[in-house]
Amino acid sequence: AIVAAVEALLAGDSGTTTTAKPLLGKHVLVTAGPTHEPIDPVRYIANRSSGKQGFAIAAAAAAAGARVTLVAGPVGLADPEGVSVRRVETARDMLAAVEIALPADIAIFAAAVADWRPAHEAGSKLKKDGSGIVPPLHVTENPDILSTIAHRRDGRPGLVVGFAAETDDVLENARKKLGRKGADIIVANDVSPANNVMGGAANTVHLVTPEGIESWPQLPKDEVARRLVHWIAGRLPPTA
Amino acid sequence: AIVAAVEALLAGDSGTTTTAKPLLGKHVLVTAGPTHEPIDPVRYIANRSSGKQGFAIAAAAAAAGARVTLVAGPVGLADPEGVSVRRVETARDMLAAVEIALPADIAIFAAAVADWRPAHEAGSKLKKDGSGIVPPLHVTENPDILSTIAHRRDGRPGLVVGFAAETDDVLENARKKLGRKGADIIVANDVSPANNVMGGAANTVHLVTPEGIESWPQLPKDEVARRLVHWIAGRLPPTA
Repeated sequence: AIVAAVEALLAGDSGTTTTAKPLLGKHVLVTAGPTHEPIDPVRYIANRSSGKQGFAIAAAAAAAGARVTLVAGPVGLADPEGVSVRRVETARDMLAAVEIALPADIAIFAAAVADWRPAHEAGSKLKKDGSGIVPPLHVTENPDILSTIAHRRDGRPGLVVGFAAETDDVLENARKKLGRKGADIIVANDVSPANNVMGGAANTVHLVTPEGIESWPQLPKDEVARRLVHWIAGRLPPTA
Repeated sequence: AIVAAVEALLAGDSGTTTTAKPLLGKHVLVTAGPTHEPIDPVRYIANRSSGKQGFAIAAAAAAAGARVTLVAGPVGLADPEGVSVRRVETARDMLAAVEIALPADIAIFAAAVADWRPAHEAGSKLKKDGSGIVPPLHVTENPDILSTIAHRRDGRPGLVVGFAAETDDVLENARKKLGRKGADIIVANDVSPANNVMGGAANTVHLVTPEGIESWPQLPKDEVARRLVHWIAGRLPPTA
């Protein structure tokens, strides 16, 4: 911590040091990881997500002085120090855990929530019938957690931050998402397999707000988290 | 190792000590973990599997003196010491890696291979169209790795061991599987959620062979692996 403080003094950038506590007294809600949507007791549909970026954000928010609630889908990551963690499996579980965790000053929805789930969950393992013919899997839309929370009339967090994981037209899709979902900020990243973002240690993000787009260079996910938390803290409405 | 050897001497059970090398000079092929079957670049269908039991078997086979090839689906486990590991994602990748790894004296198929995969993998992330209507997901059967290898005319491993993860009629389904798949041994376990086998540290297995069924008590997965490897070694055909 001393080394970090000295480095920060030398860099003249006290806003991003680990000793600055811009979120003291704030409650920050973070979601992370994928959701698993059961087909039957052994099979599921999922989104790729290691949870690393969301866990790093929760840790960075705690380091910035916030009280942090992390709602995490199934990932193999340990609870970040000083963070209250709720583990969930499905999108519906995640929405319920998020609603229970409110009110919050800032909500950062970094989870890769499955858009769809099987329309019917089988109670027993589905068996092949030997015919080689497989009936189509009927799917239904999951609740949209970001949009649901961003459009709340009562108890909307002061700042609602969404993530957009895209493979095509990244900025254009993020801009559309900002308006459609009612978010204040969309953190967009290109998760095309060639970029190795999913499961990897680095990320290249673009911060999309009604005022414009700020693009950051490729950075370690921990560093993205630290910068993002301080950047978001600087945008907190004075009344929050 | 000295303690284990002394304990084994006291127990009079040299066949299950860590110092016995019944598989010296043998090549053992093990599969482990789930497979992930892509829907699009960010979504997939999967089976629940931590890979712990298969990784433990690979480690136990290496400890028993074997040269071990482990073909592993996507799991968050480190390579076991002294084991040659191939990491794959889909059932088709896994079958290809298994065929490349042959010949083997023993093949132990502990992976939870997805029976089905999406019939068409989208090259870009599928988007919600805003209609709320979701088209059904068309799925097709994956290759059956156990059956394919067990039914090989050339280069069939001397012993082919399959796993049956069932939630209902565990032993009856395992018995049927033994004949249908052409395996020499089926290791059956009840993966009903109440048993907490998937992702847990313990397992209760039943060894199904043409001669009958042997049921073991609940044991740590490492201990299941050690016993299983020595039990299988004792059933190797003399010509293998």
